[in-house]
Amino acid sequence: MKTVRINAGRAYDVHIGAGLTDRAGKIAAGVMKPCRIAVITDTTVGPLYLERVKQSLEGAGFSVCPYAFPAGEQSKNMATLSDILEFLAESGITRSDALFALGGGVSGDITGFAAGVFLRGIKFIQMPTTLLAAVDSSVGGKTAVDLKAGKNLAGVFLQPEAVICDTDTLKTLPPETLSDGIAEAIKTGVLFDEELFSKFEGGDISESGKLPFIIERCVTHKGRVVEADEFDRGERQLLNLGHTIGHAIEKISDYGISHGHAVAAGMGIIARASQNMGIMDRGDVTRLESALSANGLPIDTKYAPSELARAALSDKKRKGSEITLVIPERIGRCRLMKINIDALQSIIEKGTGA
Amino acid sequence: MKTVRINAGRAYDVHIGAGLTDRAGKIAAGVMKPCRIAVITDTTVGPLYLERVKQSLEGAGFSVCPYAFPAGEQSKNMATLSDILEFLAESGITRSDALFALGGGVSGDITGFAAGVFLRGIKFIQMPTTLLAAVDSSVGGKTAVDLKAGKNLAGVFLQPEAVICDTDTLKTLPPETLSDGIAEAIKTGVLFDEELFSKFEGGDISESGKLPFIIERCVTHKGRVVEADEFDRGERQLLNLGHTIGHAIEKISDYGISHGHAVAAGMGIIARASQNMGIMDRGDVTRLESALSANGLPIDTKYAPSELARAALSDKKRKGSEITLVIPERIGRCRLMKINIDALQSIIEKGTGA
Repeated sequence: MKTVRINAGRAYDVHIGAGLTDRAGKIAAGVMKPCRIAVITDTTVGPLYLERVKQSLEGAGFSVCPYAFPAGEQSKNMATLSDILEFLAESGITRSDALFALGGGVSGDITGFAAGVFLRGIKFIQMPTTLLAAVDSSVGGKTAVDLKAGKNLAGVFLQPEAVICDTDTLKTLPPETLSDGIAEAIKTGVLFDEELFSKFEGGDISESGKLPFIIERCVTHKGRVVEADEFDRGERQLLNLGHTIGHAIEKISDYGISHGHAVAAGMGIIARASQNMGIMDRGDVTRLESALSANGLPIDTKYAPSELARAALSDKKRKGSEITLVIPERIGRCRLMKINIDALQSIIEKGTGA
Repeated sequence: MKTVRINAGRAYDVHIGAGLTDRAGKIAAGVMKPCRIAVITDTTVGPLYLERVKQSLEGAGFSVCPYAFPAGEQSKNMATLSDILEFLAESGITRSDALFALGGGVSGDITGFAAGVFLRGIKFIQMPTTLLAAVDSSVGGKTAVDLKAGKNLAGVFLQPEAVICDTDTLKTLPPETLSDGIAEAIKTGVLFDEELFSKFEGGDISESGKLPFIIERCVTHKGRVVEADEFDRGERQLLNLGHTIGHAIEKISDYGISHGHAVAAGMGIIARASQNMGIMDRGDVTRLESALSANGLPIDTKYAPSELARAALSDKKRKGSEITLVIPERIGRCRLMKINIDALQSIIEKGTGA
């Protein structure tokens, strides 16, 4: 088992390794006293792991009450949050009890939000069961639900007590879901870590024993950025590499294209735009395109630059006449670049039509 | 105008005085840059003050978008919160914009909650238009909505940028609503301040010019307690004087008896119980009873002690086999007393049947 310490606000550990599902109770006992734990999961992940998690927690002296919401991004809304909160109240969860998020990004985001507001805040533990949740949403303390007007528009900043990544749970993921996580891991490599990036240049990583290394590196990098900028006001913007265009692609597809696939395309586009502006070498652009393709990810989109620019600029969180883009310089290094919003379309044009 | 500085987390000012509605813009401009302000109010208060608040804010360079929800405690739920959040997103409110809570405790509590979670937190200003909201819920940073299982079970801790108490708005309150605030102010007197308490011994305070003094003192005392215990883990429990039994009365009446009236009865009961235990003098108990009666407030309840104890102990936030009561020693001084939950009914018996 590998352990990465995250020092955001309050420090906590991310535990990474095979077979950790059955050690969930022991890990929980290391960070909280015996109490009631409400395990929040979805209807896909619940049948797979809930019973083992429950047994492990009970074996460590916790009492468990489980709740499963319908699997899928469409559950990540205020109505599901409200249902979870009513369940917690009905179950008599108190301030000294805790939540346990079991599942992918939706479970983690909505359970963290519930933990942040139930009785004005109780503890929670996160057990991500997708690669995307393991490398991305389990570190950073961003909890959220979607509103009708856009994704992740409501939430709180709340750090978990511990994160438990059982790499065994990632082996059974559908290829599409796994590649969503790979896109974020490749992003982390392009941002900070050429060695991490190189693990993806050979294609399939799921069977190769590379997973614990990949997760450890991703979590470490993200943890470092979040420590420096817990409330997302500066350096943390680097993590948006590929996301400005990626979010636009998701939105135009009405979320038919997944987050990871959209971010992959966004990275391909911004890398070619960077090359076109004389910043990134052609060789590095090709390496990025090859790594994405080798892992079943797209490197471009069929949507028109004008449409992409319009969707990107309609982001509800955006303000003012400037937008900050993350521009890759080489594999392992990127820069923030403020541009006028009027220039966005022409930058996208430089990168599309690969 | 009087100003009280509250140093909870981040410092902010509570402004108290006549005619402040028309100075809302100036006060807002003192704590934030020109931005969009979503004024959240209810269908009772909106028609009375929204237009003047809007004009004042616009005069100070802010752009205003108003939202009114149906007046009443039954609106203080997750559905209204969700509606407000969707409104904010649709209106294009960004992280550099702000909310403005205009109204009583419900408006303040739900607007503060919305400010705490919209885009994971934006600023808000509070303009309480009831005495209860002015002396109580506008200081302390506790935001909330009710769940089906109980009141205030979900929320966040969030301090406003400023609080604006226009004492003119309190003069038109229905007597019932005014006396709800008086109950909390008398409570503050019993806890900390005999001079404050004495203002209520003559009865009607609304026409006497005492209001700014009363609000200032209440806000100062509450601010001091909150500063020492922002997240409600110790001394802040003192503020629950009369509330253990008061909440039970509210619950048994299915909230037909208002919070202030229930707390008044709770204070009467716990004061007599205190006398019975040899702690409070009969003279002070009589002073408290007289002050409550003189302001149209009850000093006892018709509900049976067994029923009250059962309702008090079913509090969703309570845990374990002990409960902490706030026991008045004399006017201006109280103590915390941990008792076994089994003893609660007999203590209530000592104080009921006045």
